[in-house]
Amino acid sequence: MRAIFYPESIAVIGVSLSPDNLGLGIIYNLTEFGFRGLIHEVGPKGGVISGRRIYQSVLDIPEVVDLAVILTPARTVADILDQCGQKGIRWAVVESAGFREHGEEGKKLEERMVQVAEKWGLRFVGPNCIGVINKENGLCTPFTPLNPKVQLGDVSIISQSGGVGMSVLNLMGNEGLGLNKFVSAGNMLNIQTEEFLEYLIEDPPTGFIYLHLEGIRNGRKLMEVARRSRKPILASKANIGQFGKSIASSHTASLSSNDRVVDAAFRQCGIIRINDGTALGNDLKVLHLPSMRGKNLAIISRSGGHAVIAADACEFVGFNLAQFPQAFIEEIEKHFRASVIRLTNPLDLGDLFDLDFFLRIIERTLAEDGVDGIVFLHTIIPLIEGPKSRELLARIRELSQRYKKPVAIYVSTEDQEVAWLKRNLNYPIFTQVVETVRALELNYRYYAGIEQAREPRKIESPHKNRETARSLLEKAQNEKRDLFLHEAGEVLNLYGLPMIQGIPVADEGEAVKAAGRLGFPVAMKIISKEISHKSDIGGVQLNLRTEAGVADAYRDMLRRIRQACPEAKIEGVLIQPMATGGRELIIGGRQDDQFGPVILVGLGGIFVEVFGEVSIRVAPITPREAREMINELRGIGLFKGARGTNPSDLEAVADVLLRLSQLLCDLPEIREIDINPLRVFPEKEGCLGLDVRMILDKS
Amino acid sequence: MRAIFYPESIAVIGVSLSPDNLGLGIIYNLTEFGFRGLIHEVGPKGGVISGRRIYQSVLDIPEVVDLAVILTPARTVADILDQCGQKGIRWAVVESAGFREHGEEGKKLEERMVQVAEKWGLRFVGPNCIGVINKENGLCTPFTPLNPKVQLGDVSIISQSGGVGMSVLNLMGNEGLGLNKFVSAGNMLNIQTEEFLEYLIEDPPTGFIYLHLEGIRNGRKLMEVARRSRKPILASKANIGQFGKSIASSHTASLSSNDRVVDAAFRQCGIIRINDGTALGNDLKVLHLPSMRGKNLAIISRSGGHAVIAADACEFVGFNLAQFPQAFIEEIEKHFRASVIRLTNPLDLGDLFDLDFFLRIIERTLAEDGVDGIVFLHTIIPLIEGPKSRELLARIRELSQRYKKPVAIYVSTEDQEVAWLKRNLNYPIFTQVVETVRALELNYRYYAGIEQAREPRKIESPHKNRETARSLLEKAQNEKRDLFLHEAGEVLNLYGLPMIQGIPVADEGEAVKAAGRLGFPVAMKIISKEISHKSDIGGVQLNLRTEAGVADAYRDMLRRIRQACPEAKIEGVLIQPMATGGRELIIGGRQDDQFGPVILVGLGGIFVEVFGEVSIRVAPITPREAREMINELRGIGLFKGARGTNPSDLEAVADVLLRLSQLLCDLPEIREIDINPLRVFPEKEGCLGLDVRMILDKS
Repeated sequence: MRAIFYPESIAVIGVSLSPDNLGLGIIYNLTEFGFRGLIHEVGPKGGVISGRRIYQSVLDIPEVVDLAVILTPARTVADILDQCGQKGIRWAVVESAGFREHGEEGKKLEERMVQVAEKWGLRFVGPNCIGVINKENGLCTPFTPLNPKVQLGDVSIISQSGGVGMSVLNLMGNEGLGLNKFVSAGNMLNIQTEEFLEYLIEDPPTGFIYLHLEGIRNGRKLMEVARRSRKPILASKANIGQFGKSIASSHTASLSSNDRVVDAAFRQCGIIRINDGTALGNDLKVLHLPSMRGKNLAIISRSGGHAVIAADACEFVGFNLAQFPQAFIEEIEKHFRASVIRLTNPLDLGDLFDLDFFLRIIERTLAEDGVDGIVFLHTIIPLIEGPKSRELLARIRELSQRYKKPVAIYVSTEDQEVAWLKRNLNYPIFTQVVETVRALELNYRYYAGIEQAREPRKIESPHKNRETARSLLEKAQNEKRDLFLHEAGEVLNLYGLPMIQGIPVADEGEAVKAAGRLGFPVAMKIISKEISHKSDIGGVQLNLRTEAGVADAYRDMLRRIRQACPEAKIEGVLIQPMATGGRELIIGGRQDDQFGPVILVGLGGIFVEVFGEVSIRVAPITPREAREMINELRGIGLFKGARGTNPSDLEAVADVLLRLSQLLCDLPEIREIDINPLRVFPEKEGCLGLDVRMILDKS
Repeated sequence: MRAIFYPESIAVIGVSLSPDNLGLGIIYNLTEFGFRGLIHEVGPKGGVISGRRIYQSVLDIPEVVDLAVILTPARTVADILDQCGQKGIRWAVVESAGFREHGEEGKKLEERMVQVAEKWGLRFVGPNCIGVINKENGLCTPFTPLNPKVQLGDVSIISQSGGVGMSVLNLMGNEGLGLNKFVSAGNMLNIQTEEFLEYLIEDPPTGFIYLHLEGIRNGRKLMEVARRSRKPILASKANIGQFGKSIASSHTASLSSNDRVVDAAFRQCGIIRINDGTALGNDLKVLHLPSMRGKNLAIISRSGGHAVIAADACEFVGFNLAQFPQAFIEEIEKHFRASVIRLTNPLDLGDLFDLDFFLRIIERTLAEDGVDGIVFLHTIIPLIEGPKSRELLARIRELSQRYKKPVAIYVSTEDQEVAWLKRNLNYPIFTQVVETVRALELNYRYYAGIEQAREPRKIESPHKNRETARSLLEKAQNEKRDLFLHEAGEVLNLYGLPMIQGIPVADEGEAVKAAGRLGFPVAMKIISKEISHKSDIGGVQLNLRTEAGVADAYRDMLRRIRQACPEAKIEGVLIQPMATGGRELIIGGRQDDQFGPVILVGLGGIFVEVFGEVSIRVAPITPREAREMINELRGIGLFKGARGTNPSDLEAVADVLLRLSQLLCDLPEIREIDINPLRVFPEKEGCLGLDVRMILDKS
């Protein structure tokens, strides 16, 4: 893939002398950005441009060509790719549009392109993209004339959408963030996002990667590549709305919309999710600072008003205001009493501006062990202190690097001065107080979590009972049905997931006998492949306390169901003992099209119905993630002994999540599972699934 | 107050020829901003500046002075104010610092200032402020030299903090938002925020008002003034963190932190709350557009990628993508087929740029009845289409005004072009897709809600039973205690709030008799002024079903409580019937220091404990607000017949909220009330408070 970003010679195919020829825009950009390789123009009409010949075909070029950039009508592209193949070109950027986005005919054109590419072993970016930029060597293939203002730097960009990619370049230019490489992936017919990512995580000059995604083809691959990265990856994911609307047949499915899975997946592999452009700018900036290794923030401000806003934000993001030790306060008091309005954190420095004084305070604060980072809120009056202030900020940058602690600099001043600082200081400049603190929290969270995201997640080997479980699934699949409750319970038990035992029976007499065997009270549940929401139609009876009660319930249930669902074939009923005590969770999982097996846990009953309060992870999960899933639930305090209650056995729940994770990884034919409720008993007493639905792949 | 903003002559007191004299900064600014009135310099050392005499005292000025601007050491200010009074000056701006913010001594200096001001009927801004700016006449009293870049416009600012105020001026300059008046209120010793607001809502050239508050002195006055305003008011409120930490003695108090009350109050009086500077810029911009009168948004974009992001944001903020009727689609198809990539909403216009084509599409869309507003996502390549694009945007502005529907324009382009547009287009320009849609939602919500915020809220007259209720309160106050449960119930009943009836008894025999009278089962609750959290120490027994049970429970309870709280004086117990059925809410209220009576409602039991899910309003409330409070609770669906349950009598709950609202307005001596639980029965069956705590003002 290096040839895409570092070609020594390129052919631009689709150039003509017509004034509205778009290929000319590519030539313009290559020239403006100072491309250092050879450029060969190609176009069927030929001609001469800037003293160079326009070749009528790539085959006419007398030299080796590393990369073809194609911008010709869609119907011509496959043939041109073929010629490129003949010429020995192995990499291309196809910017032409008019393919699948224009319907069936375009799709056929794409199919031919794929065949041609396969024939020659040729790889290509696009189609329907604006191509590639490399600030290092001046490669710049977009066809709209660009201003090369964005500086050379360490941020590389992969954007599915060209338009959004261009907005990000504008943002970076404005914020003084330097670009390294850019690729607009377009229809991703041949080269996928994940491959670009794989290249960039190994690309030495790239320090940070930003992805803009509209769809995710292979979520697991994306996660795997991201986990290998030693560079921060930021990603935005659009096209959320449509996703949420997929039809769900279980609680788990409806509670784990694709977008929530994307959230979980990104977090698990250390990708920082971005929701809008403002956040992107601030997040990229703050990641360029040294890492914040704890939550103790010092706020140093020239304006009391800004200090108050920052202190609020500090509390809001969960940081602490670092406690200044008495010795520190006394030292400041001795040296600076007259100048400092407030000798606490936030330090309000007031209106005096003495370079040395500012630097000494900041250095002294950085030296303090109990301070993990500083927000410096700087108000500048350019007219009288512009040059002094520029020098101050440059020296704060040095201090931050020397002490390896972040100093996030906010400035309030006129926009020309802000623009100058962003372009020239080579250090991030923030312009909103709240955003400055929020960004610093991202810095903290990223570096605190990234090692955990890289923890290996592998199922060492399939569970010893996998084949036994699989045979149960196959039997049902052959009968084109989902598992019956007692079968699903068996599968769970095979994986060590505790499920209440039950006895399936076929008539009233057996039901009474089974109840006697299990001991009263019992529950009775209908068994029928046509009925999956049992309780909605009277297929569940709880708390049956006598033989007569069981017999009555049996007759009632069958009569009711024959009335409600005359077409349902009733296999019988399942008799279960009643479980008492404990609190309820819901646990489940499903196979996600992009990310594969996904599991979730939520507070049971009304909580999940009303508040949709669940936590989600892509399987397999680590033991740490299992505990984290449980702990991040709002309301889990009730399971931990809040308000004088008995603490519940959450270790057992974590174990269930790990087993469920393996089950879904081992047996992808299970499309969805709901264990609802999972009854959780007091500490050391475990937990027990009382009901389960298991939906199989029947295709 | 007009003299503060429109003085014809001013005295700047504290001017000297020393190069670090801050007063010179004021003179500089007045000159730079082109102040159109007379300026008199005053300073004890005298001298000559720019050919004008520096008077040694205001008394030496031979002319009438409308406004004094004082920037002298704190200890001199009171005397100078006195001289101003003698001179006949009735308005002053005191910029000097060193008052209450520097401790006790400063506070004493403030007291003298107040006395002097009272003596002369002199009103002043500050101290510890940077004063006043009026772009109309060039008045500009801050002492730091400013760049007068910010344009004349219709936004006026009241900021408690000078530093934050300056940041806002920078923001406005950068965003092309025009300033009308600015005042930094400082310590607000004499003139309060509410008075400035009162002036500005009547000030003809002011169209929009932004407030930055650090504290609120008189919340009810603020609300009253805001309700009178015909101009949008935006406000940020800092200093949130410390507020949240007040100690609370009831559920209501702990759930209604001051910041949540501020939220409710602002909403009730139509103030738009701003959380950071980015939002402020976008919100001010979007309010300058015509109002969006429905939720149907059309998205028109030059980039498919931006369109997708906008569609996501549309869903996220609760807008609908307007449905384009078939006739509209066909018309576009006929005229523009070749150019438009996607003939749905969002309309993806692709790369062609034809001014006429863009305008016709936008006008046709504005003409559509089912479209309430447009987001136009514009990507500009300045090099080749800058002038065309500027003309396009100017004409879109005209269309938006002609059709009286907002067209929010987002542009993606290089920053010089963005800066040009912001400064020259005289129409808001947005630069983040998500923020554009979010801002438009604010426009919709503001105009949809503002009339309701202005609905009169008055308690016509006190409740007919107020005096009877007050005598019960007075009795308890005289005994330095809170109300006993049965007394609190009586007060509620006097106001028509349904409380379960109970019989207070003093011994076991009476308890048994009372139970017999009420009918079994009954509840028993301890009565003691020392015990307010009854159930924590065994002071509540429920479901007593027999006479013997009542007798046992009585003995048990008294024994337990004598052991647990030997110092508690036990008055007896309260016997109540048990209520069955229904669902539980919690309802309460308290007196807030800034906003007076405040009421709240939340889902009962675990919901309020775990999720803190409540809604809050400042009393008195309107019937519409009572219903809104209930309806905005997450989880209220359970009370409305969700999942096959019986709908509950929420009309009765709304009635209870209205009565509680009157109760708290009539009887401010009640500091806090919790009615917990309020049992809500099925529709038409009402609701019933089962327990209540009422905490009185005992000062």
